[in-house]
Amino acid sequence: MNAPVPKDPAFHARVQTSFDKQGLMRTLGASILHIAPGAVDIALSPNPAISQQHGFVHAGAVSSIADSAAGYAALSLMPPGVGVLTTEFKINLVAPAAGERIIARGRVIKAGRTLTLAQAEVFAEMQGKERLVALLTATLMAIEGRDGVAD
Amino acid sequence: MNAPVPKDPAFHARVQTSFDKQGLMRTLGASILHIAPGAVDIALSPNPAISQQHGFVHAGAVSSIADSAAGYAALSLMPPGVGVLTTEFKINLVAPAAGERIIARGRVIKAGRTLTLAQAEVFAEMQGKERLVALLTATLMAIEGRDGVAD
Amino acid sequence: MNAPVPKDPAFHARVQTSFDKQGLMRTLGASILHIAPGAVDIALSPNPAISQQHGFVHAGAVSSIADSAAGYAALSLMPPGVGVLTTEFKINLVAPAAGERIIARGRVIKAGRTLTLAQAEVFAEMQGKERLVALLTATLMAIEGRDGVAD
Amino acid sequence: MNAPVPKDPAFHARVQTSFDKQGLMRTLGASILHIAPGAVDIALSPNPAISQQHGFVHAGAVSSIADSAAGYAALSLMPPGVGVLTTEFKINLVAPAAGERIIARGRVIKAGRTLTLAQAEVFAEMQGKERLVALLTATLMAIEGRDGVAD
Repeated sequence: MNAPVPKDPAFHARVQTSFDKQGLMRTLGASILHIAPGAVDIALSPNPAISQQHGFVHAGAVSSIADSAAGYAALSLMPPGVGVLTTEFKINLVAPAAGERIIARGRVIKAGRTLTLAQAEVFAEMQGKERLVALLTATLMAIEGRDGVAD
Repeated sequence: MNAPVPKDPAFHARVQTSFDKQGLMRTLGASILHIAPGAVDIALSPNPAISQQHGFVHAGAVSSIADSAAGYAALSLMPPGVGVLTTEFKINLVAPAAGERIIARGRVIKAGRTLTLAQAEVFAEMQGKERLVALLTATLMAIEGRDGVAD
Repeated sequence: MNAPVPKDPAFHARVQTSFDKQGLMRTLGASILHIAPGAVDIALSPNPAISQQHGFVHAGAVSSIADSAAGYAALSLMPPGVGVLTTEFKINLVAPAAGERIIARGRVIKAGRTLTLAQAEVFAEMQGKERLVALLTATLMAIEGRDGVAD
Repeated sequence: MNAPVPKDPAFHARVQTSFDKQGLMRTLGASILHIAPGAVDIALSPNPAISQQHGFVHAGAVSSIADSAAGYAALSLMPPGVGVLTTEFKINLVAPAAGERIIARGRVIKAGRTLTLAQAEVFAEMQGKERLVALLTATLMAIEGRDGVAD
């Protein structure tokens, strides 16, 4: 999808503000690297607090930033006043998540009125190189008029 | 799958010991409720440290315990000496994860030599009632002879 | 989900009539075995016209009846006047689909106003025994007021 | 994945020969448009024999060519003597499949010794334009030494 036009001119602040409310992202040590219309990147640093049993980053932590990256890529294109919820995602884990930094790059594939399809590629950075570790596809739903569900 | 027979008589300790090495589970405040051959339940308590932007438990935290429950259900049936890795999972989120406790019940659907299919149903407990909030299916791979990958 | 109540008393005829319009089901030689509220079973017989390269039933044919079984299980619980579309499905193929008959058993997991989650287990029948060959989870969407999209 | 090198110099004939054995592809009227290392395109023409109830191409038919495209993209990079089987796939259907031609473009994302991750984008062609209708991700397994499972 080339150069999607955001329906909300304040999309950048909207995404960052919503992200800052996600307690889990703070707990995982994740932060936003990049926000553009239909595209959000989120990163975290591998450490024992987010590991699985072999010392790699847990698939759940990888999924968490990939889901948030896909979800915020979707939100960045939604009109003001709606909230975003993930209805489903699938992730394929193709290599152990290890390295200096793990980066999830979320991108909108198809933005619909109710449902948005987004994808996130997750890379491990090591010595200046990036290696694909996971691929996620997610369906995000725009929620209107439900108490407490905004952005 | 009725009454699967574990290939490792020490499956119970093996699952618990491996789980205790998962830094992420400790960080999320998750614990194992139940271990049986082909079946593992994991629970956590909703709190702001694992929330998304609307205050519900983040889909990533729900996925993390569901993935671990499915993975340990699979490991409980694997022969001694192999390690388990998730190769993919999909999760459908059917209701906001909120309540007193979130419980992921992992069950093996089909145990193969290399690949195991497992499922996890995730429930939210509230005032003595359980409500389905998510359904995960995962493929787990038995890894042999790779350094550092055991259990 | 125990004993779901159909919102359309004519659900049985509605499902059968819609199924009869699916050219693909006829082409694959598939037929409905069973219709109940929230549950539809569809079967086909393995033959060279629906095979993959090793002679098993093609994953695409298995997916086709599993998707239709899940979709019609969902439609059986939808109010009159809406149409059903699959928005996504995932299928795990755990054994080659071969035998005398392949049966997909679709069941609704959670029926929502807009989205329904359904599951289909696919079995191969051989000499009076059933063996699980695949497991599908699908999201079905209720479509209202779109021309040509009914049932 | 840039310019993957095929391990089997005869990959082109191998893919075409295996495809020609898929009875389902013939039944659906599907044919291969393009074979390159790690990339296979398959097309079919919408017609009533592969329709769902509203007259669109059935999600099962879309999935069938997407699965075959992903699977043959994977096979094109596998060493001689192994067979390919799909272990799972997920497909998101983002628009009704209608038009003059439906094309599934399969691409390998990560080729491993045992498991390969591939993706297929499915487009509908209409009046010289292509529109995305579906996105599939699949895990393909290389099978060695099992009777009847080659290519």
